[in-house]
Amino acid sequence: MKTLAALAELVGGKLVGDGSTEVNGLADLESANAGQLTFLTHEKNIDLLSSSQAAAAVVPISARDYALPVIQVRDPNLAFAIIHNYFLDRPFQGKGIDSRAVIGPDCQIPEAVTISPLVFLGRGVVLGQRVTLEPGVVVGDDVRIGDDTTLKANVTVGAGTIIGCRVMVHAGTVIGSDGFGYATDQLGHHLKRPQIGIVQIDNDVEIGSNVCIDRATFGKTWVKRGAKIDNLVQVAHNVVIGEDSIIVSQVGISGSTTLGTGVVLGGQAGVAGHLTIGDRVMAAAKTGIHANLPAKAVVSGFPAISHPLWLRVSSLLAKLPELVKDVRALKKHVAELDRK
Amino acid sequence: MKTLAALAELVGGKLVGDGSTEVNGLADLESANAGQLTFLTHEKNIDLLSSSQAAAAVVPISARDYALPVIQVRDPNLAFAIIHNYFLDRPFQGKGIDSRAVIGPDCQIPEAVTISPLVFLGRGVVLGQRVTLEPGVVVGDDVRIGDDTTLKANVTVGAGTIIGCRVMVHAGTVIGSDGFGYATDQLGHHLKRPQIGIVQIDNDVEIGSNVCIDRATFGKTWVKRGAKIDNLVQVAHNVVIGEDSIIVSQVGISGSTTLGTGVVLGGQAGVAGHLTIGDRVMAAAKTGIHANLPAKAVVSGFPAISHPLWLRVSSLLAKLPELVKDVRALKKHVAELDRK
Amino acid sequence: MKTLAALAELVGGKLVGDGSTEVNGLADLESANAGQLTFLTHEKNIDLLSSSQAAAAVVPISARDYALPVIQVRDPNLAFAIIHNYFLDRPFQGKGIDSRAVIGPDCQIPEAVTISPLVFLGRGVVLGQRVTLEPGVVVGDDVRIGDDTTLKANVTVGAGTIIGCRVMVHAGTVIGSDGFGYATDQLGHHLKRPQIGIVQIDNDVEIGSNVCIDRATFGKTWVKRGAKIDNLVQVAHNVVIGEDSIIVSQVGISGSTTLGTGVVLGGQAGVAGHLTIGDRVMAAAKTGIHANLPAKAVVSGFPAISHPLWLRVSSLLAKLPELVKDVRALKKHVAELDRK
Repeated sequence: MKTLAALAELVGGKLVGDGSTEVNGLADLESANAGQLTFLTHEKNIDLLSSSQAAAAVVPISARDYALPVIQVRDPNLAFAIIHNYFLDRPFQGKGIDSRAVIGPDCQIPEAVTISPLVFLGRGVVLGQRVTLEPGVVVGDDVRIGDDTTLKANVTVGAGTIIGCRVMVHAGTVIGSDGFGYATDQLGHHLKRPQIGIVQIDNDVEIGSNVCIDRATFGKTWVKRGAKIDNLVQVAHNVVIGEDSIIVSQVGISGSTTLGTGVVLGGQAGVAGHLTIGDRVMAAAKTGIHANLPAKAVVSGFPAISHPLWLRVSSLLAKLPELVKDVRALKKHVAELDRK
Repeated sequence: MKTLAALAELVGGKLVGDGSTEVNGLADLESANAGQLTFLTHEKNIDLLSSSQAAAAVVPISARDYALPVIQVRDPNLAFAIIHNYFLDRPFQGKGIDSRAVIGPDCQIPEAVTISPLVFLGRGVVLGQRVTLEPGVVVGDDVRIGDDTTLKANVTVGAGTIIGCRVMVHAGTVIGSDGFGYATDQLGHHLKRPQIGIVQIDNDVEIGSNVCIDRATFGKTWVKRGAKIDNLVQVAHNVVIGEDSIIVSQVGISGSTTLGTGVVLGGQAGVAGHLTIGDRVMAAAKTGIHANLPAKAVVSGFPAISHPLWLRVSSLLAKLPELVKDVRALKKHVAELDRK
Repeated sequence: MKTLAALAELVGGKLVGDGSTEVNGLADLESANAGQLTFLTHEKNIDLLSSSQAAAAVVPISARDYALPVIQVRDPNLAFAIIHNYFLDRPFQGKGIDSRAVIGPDCQIPEAVTISPLVFLGRGVVLGQRVTLEPGVVVGDDVRIGDDTTLKANVTVGAGTIIGCRVMVHAGTVIGSDGFGYATDQLGHHLKRPQIGIVQIDNDVEIGSNVCIDRATFGKTWVKRGAKIDNLVQVAHNVVIGEDSIIVSQVGISGSTTLGTGVVLGGQAGVAGHLTIGDRVMAAAKTGIHANLPAKAVVSGFPAISHPLWLRVSSLLAKLPELVKDVRALKKHVAELDRK
């Protein structure tokens, strides 16, 4: 139970109404009950508040006229996320090392960890405080994992990988598999180029389910602090993903490409290899990027062009049959004019 | 061994030839042997029947002139599938709970199940009759799984997931991972929005390999009765997939989008978030859907347009260089006319 | 430690400089230290050699003027890969069958293998010499695996699969899951078509992480000798992938399509079902192939057209707004001419 006044202070918001109102949890507008806090993203939906059962709401700073006690904030999404995380925060309850886990020699494991049954750790693995490894996790030799990091079920981490603190890796993801590199001989047979680099995942990264992040050929594949990667994403060898980047589901990033800080790639976008994508570039879903992009470029389409241009082009595409007809008519018309 | 007469009755087909012919299995035209039943989808391929070794065949109702005994039906694919399933039907052979599985406290597990070695069940898991869990399956706390459902190897099911009866989930799939949701602060750092909803999978759903179905932020992500999902598909948080929908491999469906009944999405198609896709909408492979679609819409391309229009547009695209040349020539021509 | 002379002989290259120079490892230009060999792919980058710490280098045959001892070769990538593999070559160190692996009845397993803890083998599995199965691998009944093959962590192989020699399958991949096939009844319900074929993987194939290769409906899905498949690729039932083909990440190949020898499919490309793709066809990233292609076709775009044409078309696309404007102006102009 928290009072609205305390929560307002937590998010630096303005309390309007009874600050002693207590809430015991959070929910969206439709499902919130009488003991819960809810939130409103857009002022225009203010009428929805009156039909909500919620005890109180987080609302935009501009919103007026509400039946409930509210906390006014600049960014209701952010304030709500802060409050929600605050409500869910629990002290770490380590279960230690389950006897049905398999732990290799020379590992360094503090007491405050949860290593579930059916986990496998290779030789020389070093774990930080409060690491959680769910069942089915396989960690290769000499992997280092920082404090408060969680690997969900059936995650595989290849030898030598370095994972920072407060990293969350969702189920089925593979980190540190071999990069896809071959040299082709005169007969057309492909000889594997050994992939002897590593993967480094920095602090506060979150990685979705069934993602693949390949180890570098030499050196490292690198996901920097705060980057968030959705499900089924492909990160090839020697890719660098900049801090706070957002990589949406099913994106593919080819080898040796570097993304700057705060890059956003929409779902199913693809980036060719050996490119440099500037800070804060945004690419819409399904974009195919084949060339370097300067900082803050906003692109769409395949091949990628500026987003506003793509919007015009794509709306004209549907009119292509008409255009062809027009040109044909014009040719005929001009031919007639000629004859006169 | 079944007689052709019995099989004809099973599928409501018309027997032509010796109904006492016995078959002991099924195969396609090329590989069927003298004891097997085969099938012909299209009348035009009727000549292939005479070169088949099969004992008998299921054929379209319109087909004429065949050397073999046949069962004539409206839909040979359907009749063959019915017969094939009938042949393969076996009583459930439960192996019970293997001692090398890890079962959490407070689980409810009937006798007639197969829980393989190396399975992990969390706390409070409730299993129906004849559930099969293959090795490497990890099931989180409080998951409920209905009768006759199978989770193949290395499937991960997150806490609180509800799975119906006769559901088949193929290997490596992850159900109930966190949705991809963040709020971004003034520094550009992304704060995780807790994902506290669940996934609900209804009866008779089949889900391919290495699929990701994320849990809802609040409420539920919902795959309704009879939907079929192919490999490597992404289903984001709060998505609803309607009954009997067909989602082909590598499709991505963004958050909070609702598909109606009987929707068909071709391979690698993508659907943006917060959309409503009507009943029986069909989208071709690689389609990118960015707007709501009414029932029975048939769309292609990116951005999605009507399929017939897309066929015309895409054939004209290859003629774009010619069109540009024509327009240039016209401009020159008209300029000459001007001069006269 | 190897002498440069020995390595030159290994790759059939021309030694320039001191052949008694010894190297103890390999690295790229930036990271090579004084005991290592490095390599240069393009002559134009020859200046980078002088700033490298490397002891020696593999260089293109055309390269001139270098401070280091070098081996001149036609294809530095290939020569370097040969040398690198030579350096990394180690005799197989089998660890035998770990007691925490689960081995079904009637398996045939030679002594020289590594079967890790938490591996599951079904009934009747036959393993070749020097097979390595990492933790979490699940192998179904009657699977056969050839000599020197490695299945990395959490790989799932379905019953009846045949895998050749020197095959490498990376973590999380699923081989032999059911193909995606249904027959639809009058109510729109989808009845599963049993998938009773197998998958056959021939010698020297490498398969990435979280790939899906479905078993055939009847017969076999077949990946032929030397093919290389990247991460997150979908290979549907009854597909045939020709020898030495290269399938880049996130490609999808639909059912019953046959690829010839040496086909290259770029990332996120898709191929429709029941097609025949000729030998040495190359498709760029994101290509959508909807029709058969003759040998050596080079295609791009969606729908796929010849690559040079696609380059022209895609550059003209961005000029479509201008073209539409031109046509409008022309129409107006011609109408004026009419009036005169």
